[in-house]
Amino acid sequence: MIQPPTLRDVYEARKTIAPYLARTPLHYSAGLSRLFEAEIYLKHEEYHPLGAFKGRGGINFLAHLGEEERRRGVITASTGNHGQSIANACQIFDARALIALPAKDPNPLKVAAMEALGAELVFYGENFDEAKAHAERLAREEGYRYVHPTDEPLLIAGVGTQALEIIEDLPDVEVMYMPLGGGSGVSGACIVAKGINPEIKVRAVQGEGAPAGYLSWQQGQLVQAPMNTFAEGIATMNGYELPQRIIRHLLDDFVLVSDDELRFAMGLLVEKAHTLAEGAGAAATAGALKQRESLRGKKVSITISGANTTADHLAAALKVYHDSP
Amino acid sequence: MIQPPTLRDVYEARKTIAPYLARTPLHYSAGLSRLFEAEIYLKHEEYHPLGAFKGRGGINFLAHLGEEERRRGVITASTGNHGQSIANACQIFDARALIALPAKDPNPLKVAAMEALGAELVFYGENFDEAKAHAERLAREEGYRYVHPTDEPLLIAGVGTQALEIIEDLPDVEVMYMPLGGGSGVSGACIVAKGINPEIKVRAVQGEGAPAGYLSWQQGQLVQAPMNTFAEGIATMNGYELPQRIIRHLLDDFVLVSDDELRFAMGLLVEKAHTLAEGAGAAATAGALKQRESLRGKKVSITISGANTTADHLAAALKVYHDSP
Repeated sequence: MIQPPTLRDVYEARKTIAPYLARTPLHYSAGLSRLFEAEIYLKHEEYHPLGAFKGRGGINFLAHLGEEERRRGVITASTGNHGQSIANACQIFDARALIALPAKDPNPLKVAAMEALGAELVFYGENFDEAKAHAERLAREEGYRYVHPTDEPLLIAGVGTQALEIIEDLPDVEVMYMPLGGGSGVSGACIVAKGINPEIKVRAVQGEGAPAGYLSWQQGQLVQAPMNTFAEGIATMNGYELPQRIIRHLLDDFVLVSDDELRFAMGLLVEKAHTLAEGAGAAATAGALKQRESLRGKKVSITISGANTTADHLAAALKVYHDSP
Repeated sequence: MIQPPTLRDVYEARKTIAPYLARTPLHYSAGLSRLFEAEIYLKHEEYHPLGAFKGRGGINFLAHLGEEERRRGVITASTGNHGQSIANACQIFDARALIALPAKDPNPLKVAAMEALGAELVFYGENFDEAKAHAERLAREEGYRYVHPTDEPLLIAGVGTQALEIIEDLPDVEVMYMPLGGGSGVSGACIVAKGINPEIKVRAVQGEGAPAGYLSWQQGQLVQAPMNTFAEGIATMNGYELPQRIIRHLLDDFVLVSDDELRFAMGLLVEKAHTLAEGAGAAATAGALKQRESLRGKKVSITISGANTTADHLAAALKVYHDSP
């Protein structure tokens, strides 16, 4: 069984990625603080060059590969941000990158971004799981190094560095909100927060249109669930083994939000915090808003995980925001 | 006559503001580079806590005031970002802040932001110039320290630090695009760029709905012009003396863009560069797009000066972007 990363691994990851990736700021939001009647701090992971937090994991993973593995190539499956992270890291470490993704309805921005980063794209299947199975098959047949999108301690330790930065900037943070897709970000945050100060509450947020991660956590076993949300960055069909094993006992709470709650949060972030977020990137804000009553007077961090939205998704979000009472 | 700041003053300003304001990143944009067939780098001044570049100037100014001046209070006139910058700096340096602004049609987000920063707001007159005359009168009558929004070397040196950071991160930059409102940002950039490497071309961009800065530069004298644009961050009724004196011989080119060109650029930045910009913040992108032919193969920096847009202005921008062929 794969061992989860430790807090020490997160510190190692930070040292590893520091030369390649700048720290992101944690900014106090006056506008959101007034609205929440709390002290709200935004962790701006959308300020990364790739526009998303995942880059931390990819660099940590690639930095640990040997020259021969880099030369043969790395393969993974992704609908977007994870693939960009691996492609970017492969570019930095001069490795061949192959990314499998579903042939059906890929996010065109993320496809273009992965291509621009020099990745070879393999379109396969109807959904993420079919693409993922194909990537695993190619890895076996061709000898590529397979990168599991979530069951990979180096990725979890890498993305865990964002939670470490939050605590360094705001040591008395009381509640941390993070979006949950495959679960690497939240599981990394749990390891960091509970390792440094078990009093910090970590709360995950997912879309109710794609609740596999939520249901797996709630039921204590890996389950499948339908996937129907515009926020593909937090949509998976399954819970994943390693992150679920980590969050089972460490995660304090889990909130589901609707697509319109995600859209409202995207509009709110634009207007009250001059912040651009994709659907997944606004999930933590939407979840915090839903639990606003419980936050009054508290110090709260909200992670904006990414800003890779299409203009049309953003327009739809602003309409929901505009039409809200 | 007020002396313009020198390159040395900009270095002094950088040292002064460094403890209070983090450096902003200059990110290569793969999406815009493909579109422009050039190497496009975005200077993310919208990543500042206040969402705009002006904060650099306010801190540099307040840091140079004596205790007695801070205690009596500082007054200025502003429609928004400059006022936020002064209010924020007064908060940091424990000074009283008064901001005069036109009673007519203020940007509600910027008003709320200035209030949240502890400024006392004085609503007066129909437009910026009436509010500004009122602020000058109050300064004389009440003994406040008046901060001219542009004819103030400490502000120009402060905002000039962003151009210095661009050159440090990209020493072989060939063309720099900046938005021009009152002119402090562009004049600071001219002092820095021409002082370090006269080969660097500095190009200013303003809205054709409010071309006072452009016409003043073109005609070599301070002129008034109508003001009719949604992008209030680059709208003034007049050219201003000190910035115009600086840019007259140092600025290489000046582009005017329409409101719809600004809106298109806002949409383009969202979709191709996961970047939020207000109208003024997208001006440099719109100007560069208009001069795209001249940029092919070049290394170009584009300053995103601010992201304080209302949701409605952004929605209108996305519609223009969506409907463009």
